Amino acid sequence: MKTAVLITIGDEILSGNTVDTNSNFIATQLKEIGIKVLSIFTIPDEESTIVSTLAMAFEMADVVFTTGGLGPTKDDITKKAYADFFEDEMIFSDEIYEHLRAYLEKRKRLWILEHNKDQAMVLSKAKIFLNYFGTAPCMILEKNGTYCFSLPGVPYEVKPLVKDQIIPFLKEKLSLDHIVTRIVSVVDIPESILSETIEEWELALPKHISLSYLPVGTRVKLRLTASGSSQELLNTELENEITKLFLLIGENIIATQEDKIEKILGELLTEKKLTISVAESCTGGELAHLITSVSGSSNYFLGSVVTYATQKKIDLLNVNPKTVEEFTVVSEQVASEMAIGCQNLFKTDISVSTTGVAGPGKGEDGKDVGTVFYTIRIGNQETTSKLFLPHLERLDFMNFVSQKVIQDIVSLLIKK
Amino acid sequence: MKTAVLITIGDEILSGNTVDTNSNFIATQLKEIGIKVLSIFTIPDEESTIVSTLAMAFEMADVVFTTGGLGPTKDDITKKAYADFFEDEMIFSDEIYEHLRAYLEKRKRLWILEHNKDQAMVLSKAKIFLNYFGTAPCMILEKNGTYCFSLPGVPYEVKPLVKDQIIPFLKEKLSLDHIVTRIVSVVDIPESILSETIEEWELALPKHISLSYLPVGTRVKLRLTASGSSQELLNTELENEITKLFLLIGENIIATQEDKIEKILGELLTEKKLTISVAESCTGGELAHLITSVSGSSNYFLGSVVTYATQKKIDLLNVNPKTVEEFTVVSEQVASEMAIGCQNLFKTDISVSTTGVAGPGKGEDGKDVGTVFYTIRIGNQETTSKLFLPHLERLDFMNFVSQKVIQDIVSLLIKK
Repeated sequence: MKTAVLITIGDEILSGNTVDTNSNFIATQLKEIGIKVLSIFTIPDEESTIVSTLAMAFEMADVVFTTGGLGPTKDDITKKAYADFFEDEMIFSDEIYEHLRAYLEKRKRLWILEHNKDQAMVLSKAKIFLNYFGTAPCMILEKNGTYCFSLPGVPYEVKPLVKDQIIPFLKEKLSLDHIVTRIVSVVDIPESILSETIEEWELALPKHISLSYLPVGTRVKLRLTASGSSQELLNTELENEITKLFLLIGENIIATQEDKIEKILGELLTEKKLTISVAESCTGGELAHLITSVSGSSNYFLGSVVTYATQKKIDLLNVNPKTVEEFTVVSEQVASEMAIGCQNLFKTDISVSTTGVAGPGKGEDGKDVGTVFYTIRIGNQETTSKLFLPHLERLDFMNFVSQKVIQDIVSLLIKK
Repeated sequence: MKTAVLITIGDEILSGNTVDTNSNFIATQLKEIGIKVLSIFTIPDEESTIVSTLAMAFEMADVVFTTGGLGPTKDDITKKAYADFFEDEMIFSDEIYEHLRAYLEKRKRLWILEHNKDQAMVLSKAKIFLNYFGTAPCMILEKNGTYCFSLPGVPYEVKPLVKDQIIPFLKEKLSLDHIVTRIVSVVDIPESILSETIEEWELALPKHISLSYLPVGTRVKLRLTASGSSQELLNTELENEITKLFLLIGENIIATQEDKIEKILGELLTEKKLTISVAESCTGGELAHLITSVSGSSNYFLGSVVTYATQKKIDLLNVNPKTVEEFTVVSEQVASEMAIGCQNLFKTDISVSTTGVAGPGKGEDGKDVGTVFYTIRIGNQETTSKLFLPHLERLDFMNFVSQKVIQDIVSLLIKK
């Protein structure tokens, strides 16, 4: 199996100012063509460190990526390190300069061309992929059969360069094994019990099929990865293994293809031709955002409201002020009335509501931080549940609750 | 300055299934107490790799963190690697077992105790920090003056362990310099021009103050970091440098303290005692989510609607069907009517609307993917703008637009 090492160059990542999402994207893309990432090294913008890390990566892998360290204010160090490691010199590329000029002209920013012209300096041995969404090009270098790609750091520049240019290039240059992956989503069983229940099956897996456990909230994703020369055969083999898994934990499996719970929901809603709407309080828009993050969600998601202020729950969702008074705003009764109001407002088959306290700081009614009630209405049947998650920080809380609500809708729809 | 190396153990990160957010959190926490992260190594669950990476990290830094590789199904490999590297043996800890028992009992999951009891096995030389939000404890080991912390991989378990136990421990054990950081947010000037404009100032910065550029969307964050023995002196020095910066690029500066644009907005709204509401289409809840991600946002954020379906824009926001017919749903006219409708619905000082096509796939009206119009109403004054971002993937598009909208509200409020 071909292997890769990713090198992330960036003080902003080491200082915690930026989360590195490029590595994740590149790893996902490489996995799809059967290249395994051995390690990710995140290092500072220092010439000597870049050189020594490149050397280490070239010892380890068939493909090396660097991201970051390029751009008008940082170019120098990274390119010097490249020139040093590849024993090469920098030349001015007319092709890149012309591309840069056209790029800036199109964006009415030609006046910054002179300030950016050093971006047309590249190693003399480098092949170039032009960057259509930014100013720093990607250099491709080869040394002892290992390919190296220098990428900028901006995620929306990295994505098309990798997807449209690097992946096709690697497919052509390396003779790659096929990789097939299936994700089995398992709910309502703790990881330790799950691993005992399926232990025998796991031990009997053929060598070219690997299994990993990925817990996400209250769900465990089992990832099966198979590698070999025939994609069709690999598909059949994985299908067979999943069939065996169904005999062991069938009632805990909610999906066997998709990875993301919001996509699983999207497929179910599309298949069953159902519409959904959302009334949020403590999740503050995250639940709607998760649902709409799926391309095509406009076919089943009609809309949502975030009623943060209690009065808006009354005005928009027709929650009865007496219910709020009697049970407080964080209660199963209010959750239920919000869901009914939401279903009436948007006229959807399914409606969901959340009301709780994300914290930090006590909610208006004094209930403990971390409490949330949520109601799922499917047609005229409703289920209200409570979660208590005082250990989660605000954003983690919003995300955990939203994931769990969607997971519950999926479970309910499957059982129907 | 004391230094750290972070080691992330996890096939799930190398395969692209999970984004590593722990390193970011730990780096941020360490920066606050003046410990600099030199490198982050992400490696597979392999005993020999763990051992060699630990060895490399111990050569480099004063503090080493490992995250991941612990938990009921993965314990063995990581702990064996630790035992090997620290030349130690595993012992059963009654204290941890008792904690685990109490933890599971409280969660009504005592039935899984036997399956998890190996988590009470730790190195004999290790000091232990108990994990109050999960089952895997943190081991603290010391070798040649370097401290090593073994953490689980689940972010909500990592956060309190680091914040409440490890950081206070490090503060006591190491004599640390003070670190003061200021973030200056700059808009409406390209990075290359910015760097030329402030070059002289930058070159004149004293050696203990460092500067870095962090572009985020259309904003550039300038991070100034100063280290020294007197926190008060550092604060004064940074304040002076920022005053000089104002003389050069004052009209481009929108904030000098906060890092996140949604927090900058929150502070402005609180200070000016203004309320806000949101009507979203193509941003699908992300704009509301960003605003409500700030603790205390319930004081100024009254609510929002996501009107994905055109009919809901008409029903809820009172958009005129004729406007939709004449100009299409993705138009400045519809954006404007949505903002007016939103302000009437929520009775807020400020309202914002977005209408566009996040893609992929053409919108209902055939407009190009990546187009968005947004209106900001402050009182009865409104500004409508257009963005065209065809290069962004769906989620990046939603986030970019939401960030830009908030940035524009901030600019408008500052100029008022």
